[in-house]
Amino acid sequence: MPIEAREWYKRNLDYNVPGGKLNRGMSVVDSVEILRGRILNDDEYFKAAILGWCIELLQASFLVADDIMDQSITRRGQPCWYKNGDVGNIAINDAMMLEAAIYHLLKSHFRKESYYVDLLELFHEITHLTEMGQLVDLITAPEHEVDLNKFSLEKHQFIVIYKTAYYSFYLPVALAMYMTRIPSTYTLNYSTPDPYKIALDILLPLGEYFQIQDDFLDYSGTPEQIGKIGTDIIDNKCSWCIITALTIASPAQRKVLDENYGQKDTTKEAKVKVVFKEIPDVKVTPTYDDEPAVLQRQVFKTFLDKIYKRTK
Amino acid sequence: MPIEAREWYKRNLDYNVPGGKLNRGMSVVDSVEILRGRILNDDEYFKAAILGWCIELLQASFLVADDIMDQSITRRGQPCWYKNGDVGNIAINDAMMLEAAIYHLLKSHFRKESYYVDLLELFHEITHLTEMGQLVDLITAPEHEVDLNKFSLEKHQFIVIYKTAYYSFYLPVALAMYMTRIPSTYTLNYSTPDPYKIALDILLPLGEYFQIQDDFLDYSGTPEQIGKIGTDIIDNKCSWCIITALTIASPAQRKVLDENYGQKDTTKEAKVKVVFKEIPDVKVTPTYDDEPAVLQRQVFKTFLDKIYKRTK
Repeated sequence: MPIEAREWYKRNLDYNVPGGKLNRGMSVVDSVEILRGRILNDDEYFKAAILGWCIELLQASFLVADDIMDQSITRRGQPCWYKNGDVGNIAINDAMMLEAAIYHLLKSHFRKESYYVDLLELFHEITHLTEMGQLVDLITAPEHEVDLNKFSLEKHQFIVIYKTAYYSFYLPVALAMYMTRIPSTYTLNYSTPDPYKIALDILLPLGEYFQIQDDFLDYSGTPEQIGKIGTDIIDNKCSWCIITALTIASPAQRKVLDENYGQKDTTKEAKVKVVFKEIPDVKVTPTYDDEPAVLQRQVFKTFLDKIYKRTK
Repeated sequence: MPIEAREWYKRNLDYNVPGGKLNRGMSVVDSVEILRGRILNDDEYFKAAILGWCIELLQASFLVADDIMDQSITRRGQPCWYKNGDVGNIAINDAMMLEAAIYHLLKSHFRKESYYVDLLELFHEITHLTEMGQLVDLITAPEHEVDLNKFSLEKHQFIVIYKTAYYSFYLPVALAMYMTRIPSTYTLNYSTPDPYKIALDILLPLGEYFQIQDDFLDYSGTPEQIGKIGTDIIDNKCSWCIITALTIASPAQRKVLDENYGQKDTTKEAKVKVVFKEIPDVKVTPTYDDEPAVLQRQVFKTFLDKIYKRTK
């Protein structure tokens, strides 16, 4: 590539891939360590770290694209990538290039492994599911057409599981399971519980809980706490907060929500926040059992430890 | 997925995937037929057609995204997808979902084939190269910063080969070669000419010639001929026409080009076209030999037949 393009790609990677909490990436390393039951050797650590960075690349790709679609302003305490002077809509191609880097890394480091195809298929499938979640999110809450009747707990659950839980919760553990050569028994024997299915059954509800916290922090957290300015109310998002408020709101409160939710106006946003504060249920309490009786209890425990009582 | 999302995905596929000339997709079928040297049986035809549709999906994904980045108005004789009332920036996610459909199809129909991984890697690599071409195109000719000194025949060649030739010319033939189990000898023996390398050496220059025609048609073709309104001049594109004009323009003509190229103003666009008409070299003459002495002469001949003397 010409030098300007190589520098651009480097800038894209440096700006968008690091800078998050790296929970997803580190979860691969932690999970492989737990599954192996010992400290990893250099090669194992390196491979697990590469897979971790692949998730971070996937996440970066989604965030760059989502920020354009949501017209967000800041991300991780800095302006969104597309908001940088010379970037603009080039960010669409940049998001796709972040995704392409995943398959370049996988080919470079896992091509000779027996589970190489499993890794490729897993990334393809999770990417597709996440995009489905993003689609439902976008058409349930279009920017300029507020209709709170479209919101429901079922829709919220679908969006959360597809848009967030698969790639944030299931993907790191499934990658670690493939790397440690845990076989899928799904196609071999339907009567044997498939370990990947068990992982899904535990990790997706965990992801749901995580997102409920996230929704709550978007409304209640300060920019210093959450590294961004929450825009769910202004962006007409099908958030756990509005759904909970709607189920309990008095007719007068409902009227305030209908008239002020999802509009690009901070005065109206403040009126919604007043109603949220009036409704005691709009707060997050841990409701899920943090001791699931499972296969790799400690893998999931690490997950739970990371998200339990988090403030950012 | 909820019914609204399934309907949206269907609309996205129906609107964006068919409607082109299907040259790329049909080239897979033609190439497999030529490589086999006989009429295909139903299973062979079906498989080749699936691979053809995978290219059409990839193309659709690129076009949907490029149209947003270029702020284009029409495509294939209809409004660009993002220009449809309720779509807008959701088209970014739709472009990514078109890409994801490729891997879903490949998994559904080729999973058990020995060349499955080759197909996946080929799509990954070509996608990455195409995005690199798009990046160089975008940063060489930014929308609001016209500098004709940035344009050169070398840059044009890079953009054309990466952004168009790999996926339009090499990809269909390479897919057909994998499907007919032609082995890559590249990693086995460096002294044996690798058939995939030979295909590249022939098809990329062919793609370059095609794009030069395309650049010329963007400037000279009517909307009826080319199914869209040409916007290369207004969009400040590093097109073959402007590069050719720049190499020959008199100082007076150069001044007109500097002052009028790449601006959202049809009067200025018309002034550029006047200069193009004054310079006799801004027209396309077939310059490539259409009889390359190659491995699978007829595969490439079919290609040549398709693009030779085309008017759309």
